[in-house]
Amino acid sequence: MSLFLGQIVGALGGTLELAGSDTEILRIAPLDSAGPGDLSFLSNPRYQQQLAASKAACVIVAPAMREAAMQRGACIVADNPYVYFARATQLWKRLHARAVAAGVHPSAVVDPEAVVDPTAYVGPLCVVERGARIGAGTQLKSRVTVGEDCIVGARCILHSGVVLGSDGFGFAPEGGAWVKIEQLGAVRIGDDVEIGANTCIDRGALDDTVIEDGVKLDNLVQIGHNVHVGRHVAMAGCVGVAGSAQIGAHCTVGGGAIVLGHLQLAENVHISAATVVTRSLNKPGVYTGMFPVDENTKWEKNAATLKQLHSLRERIKALEQQQQQGSKIGTQ
Amino acid sequence: MSLFLGQIVGALGGTLELAGSDTEILRIAPLDSAGPGDLSFLSNPRYQQQLAASKAACVIVAPAMREAAMQRGACIVADNPYVYFARATQLWKRLHARAVAAGVHPSAVVDPEAVVDPTAYVGPLCVVERGARIGAGTQLKSRVTVGEDCIVGARCILHSGVVLGSDGFGFAPEGGAWVKIEQLGAVRIGDDVEIGANTCIDRGALDDTVIEDGVKLDNLVQIGHNVHVGRHVAMAGCVGVAGSAQIGAHCTVGGGAIVLGHLQLAENVHISAATVVTRSLNKPGVYTGMFPVDENTKWEKNAATLKQLHSLRERIKALEQQQQQGSKIGTQ
Amino acid sequence: MSLFLGQIVGALGGTLELAGSDTEILRIAPLDSAGPGDLSFLSNPRYQQQLAASKAACVIVAPAMREAAMQRGACIVADNPYVYFARATQLWKRLHARAVAAGVHPSAVVDPEAVVDPTAYVGPLCVVERGARIGAGTQLKSRVTVGEDCIVGARCILHSGVVLGSDGFGFAPEGGAWVKIEQLGAVRIGDDVEIGANTCIDRGALDDTVIEDGVKLDNLVQIGHNVHVGRHVAMAGCVGVAGSAQIGAHCTVGGGAIVLGHLQLAENVHISAATVVTRSLNKPGVYTGMFPVDENTKWEKNAATLKQLHSLRERIKALEQQQQQGSKIGTQ
Repeated sequence: MSLFLGQIVGALGGTLELAGSDTEILRIAPLDSAGPGDLSFLSNPRYQQQLAASKAACVIVAPAMREAAMQRGACIVADNPYVYFARATQLWKRLHARAVAAGVHPSAVVDPEAVVDPTAYVGPLCVVERGARIGAGTQLKSRVTVGEDCIVGARCILHSGVVLGSDGFGFAPEGGAWVKIEQLGAVRIGDDVEIGANTCIDRGALDDTVIEDGVKLDNLVQIGHNVHVGRHVAMAGCVGVAGSAQIGAHCTVGGGAIVLGHLQLAENVHISAATVVTRSLNKPGVYTGMFPVDENTKWEKNAATLKQLHSLRERIKALEQQQQQGSKIGTQ
Repeated sequence: MSLFLGQIVGALGGTLELAGSDTEILRIAPLDSAGPGDLSFLSNPRYQQQLAASKAACVIVAPAMREAAMQRGACIVADNPYVYFARATQLWKRLHARAVAAGVHPSAVVDPEAVVDPTAYVGPLCVVERGARIGAGTQLKSRVTVGEDCIVGARCILHSGVVLGSDGFGFAPEGGAWVKIEQLGAVRIGDDVEIGANTCIDRGALDDTVIEDGVKLDNLVQIGHNVHVGRHVAMAGCVGVAGSAQIGAHCTVGGGAIVLGHLQLAENVHISAATVVTRSLNKPGVYTGMFPVDENTKWEKNAATLKQLHSLRERIKALEQQQQQGSKIGTQ
Repeated sequence: MSLFLGQIVGALGGTLELAGSDTEILRIAPLDSAGPGDLSFLSNPRYQQQLAASKAACVIVAPAMREAAMQRGACIVADNPYVYFARATQLWKRLHARAVAAGVHPSAVVDPEAVVDPTAYVGPLCVVERGARIGAGTQLKSRVTVGEDCIVGARCILHSGVVLGSDGFGFAPEGGAWVKIEQLGAVRIGDDVEIGANTCIDRGALDDTVIEDGVKLDNLVQIGHNVHVGRHVAMAGCVGVAGSAQIGAHCTVGGGAIVLGHLQLAENVHISAATVVTRSLNKPGVYTGMFPVDENTKWEKNAATLKQLHSLRERIKALEQQQQQGSKIGTQ
């Protein structure tokens, strides 16, 4: 498996410096582990020292790094080296991986009343239920479930174990038991959405659960019923979004974070990992809430004290009042 | 797909006001988005303003709201509107959805020594292992695993990707490595239990893991070995319950919460989302422990200070002592 | 199903006291629930009172407990009773469970270019993709996916729903959208690794994701791309490890904990449940960070005050300075 630098620049643009088009690339590799046959990239000027030391055959750099890169050796100058690198991985895969066959694997169970675009791929042991629709170029990896009436747009990737259209978690309490609220909505997934392994998206109770175009969900994410995830949102692994939450476009949610039900996140809200969102966030920005990790013995002391925090505040208040009185007396 | 109000009241009871039995209902919808062909409901008097503004053809209301509702238009008066609504969704589904076929889908792998009730349904690509038993009317959606000797009661719903009877996480440390403790117990699920997509319930080490009647588990929940979950407990998505925990009847556990091993929760304990239960809770009530979300810059300051909380308490104590001495001196 | 004490001691060693080799054992059971036909064990001297009260036919004890145990009745004296118990469960399973057949279940989908060792077992409805390799004696339970080019060593157990080799979560931002970084690495799993139900391990972006020998992962764990998990690490359920984290040998990670990306954990670091690791931990030890659970009303007060913690510290500082000045004045 190899690629010539000329192929890369021919396909992706950029300016090749200090190397011929016929230079052979054996691998794409990180700066610090790249060897003499490898293509690498510098996306963050902070790693400039790694650039100087890198043994890579060629490094993708931004125009501002052109001189520094050429002192080391061959480079490709491109406006956005990280995006260029991403496109290079796509080129690599296109040329080397076995082409993803369109069509339905014979072991998949597709209901005759489901509609799978002829350019889509339904992998081994998938289940596509009645009324479901799978868009053009979309790939269902192995063991994916797309439930009744759920719609997946074009060019999506659903990884192994994904479940779309499981029932939302809706029950009415009656006499100490739970009466099931049938979930009559479905799931609608836009175009260019990627959904990670074993991630679950519930169908809506009455209306649909909606994932807009360009959304990227990592593995083991849970999306509750009637959630609306705006365009180009990205959520890392193990995130849970409870029912009816509305996530604005371009939000990001860090791994293990929880968004409670019925909340609204404005566009461009960024939630840190493991943060619990307990109220709507109407202003763009970065939001965090997590207990800082510490040595266990120190944590124990601080956590125990935390339970008295409110009363400590009262004691501080009392001290301030006494001191104020004291100083009044002092100044009399 | 439609339903007449007469069919609904005929099946579910309640008093129909200001509309004829032949009024056609096209959809069940929330108050605020309901249109002129829709049935809606008011379960919480707080939303009374939405009631007045709703365009619904008919609204399910409690007896106390009868007058207010009739000022708007047609209504069904029922003792518990939320439960009535739940039953209406069930009626809707029963009349409109394709009947769930009983029997075993031909793609499922059912061991000849497993027992599946003839009224149960085992969906596509499920695995039911030797000695497992599936009760009357129980539905295994697609891609469910029921492990060896595990028992599922009557009228349960297991969503896609559920795993019952994976090995509990038990290892004895020896010389820096782990010696596997074979998990010789099984899983016993009661009647009317619903288990969400990709949720896992481990088999017991020596005795069984037990889920009692009426329990509702959401998606991506992890139940460790030898856990006992009491009747009508409900757990939201992404909850983890560690081994040998005992959860009393009627408890609820919010999304992303963690219950540590060997703990006991009394009946009617309610754990907030993302809370870590580190000790047994013997009194009914609501329990919470989560770091409040904040703007990241504010969080950073508070989190840094949190690491000094115990020493801050000591400083407050010192201030109090000094002040007390000072005031003693002052009063001499 | 039964076993004679002589068989156990014959296979596992230890000294049998106050019972004959022909004593029949019907079950292995915990001390407190063991009956007269059961074998039990005492691994922790704290439970000595349970020992005295136990109705077990025979109890496995350490040499130091020999006298106490013999006052009660029959015992097996072994250096490490917990490991002895673990081995006894293995013996029990070996003798009583249906032998795990080697070979590939006819419903599994194994690519002709995958290599499955003839002594390995690939269960029902598994998917093993092109270039994957499954080592000697390894068991894939039902519904496991092993992706392209992923390698699983010898004597591993992969539980139902495991996904190895899903794409890592890598995207380059461009103009508000995400450009996919193809994940060109694979997953390499060592020998004697156990992976819990519905756990996901992503393939590396450029290099491989690596799980070393003897690692034990519980259910619903997420391992990001390029993570390196050292030998004999154990992680409990619902843990998430973000991309490129390096976990040293013999670490343990409690349930629901999150390890952020690109961090390094030294050997023998132990992370408590639900802790978020936000920085590298270079020293062995126990680390914790979780908000202590409390009654909700108390939590609300403390959590609200927590948002003012940094300003409370400033107020304490101000009090200290004023007091110092006051005392200076007093001593003049």
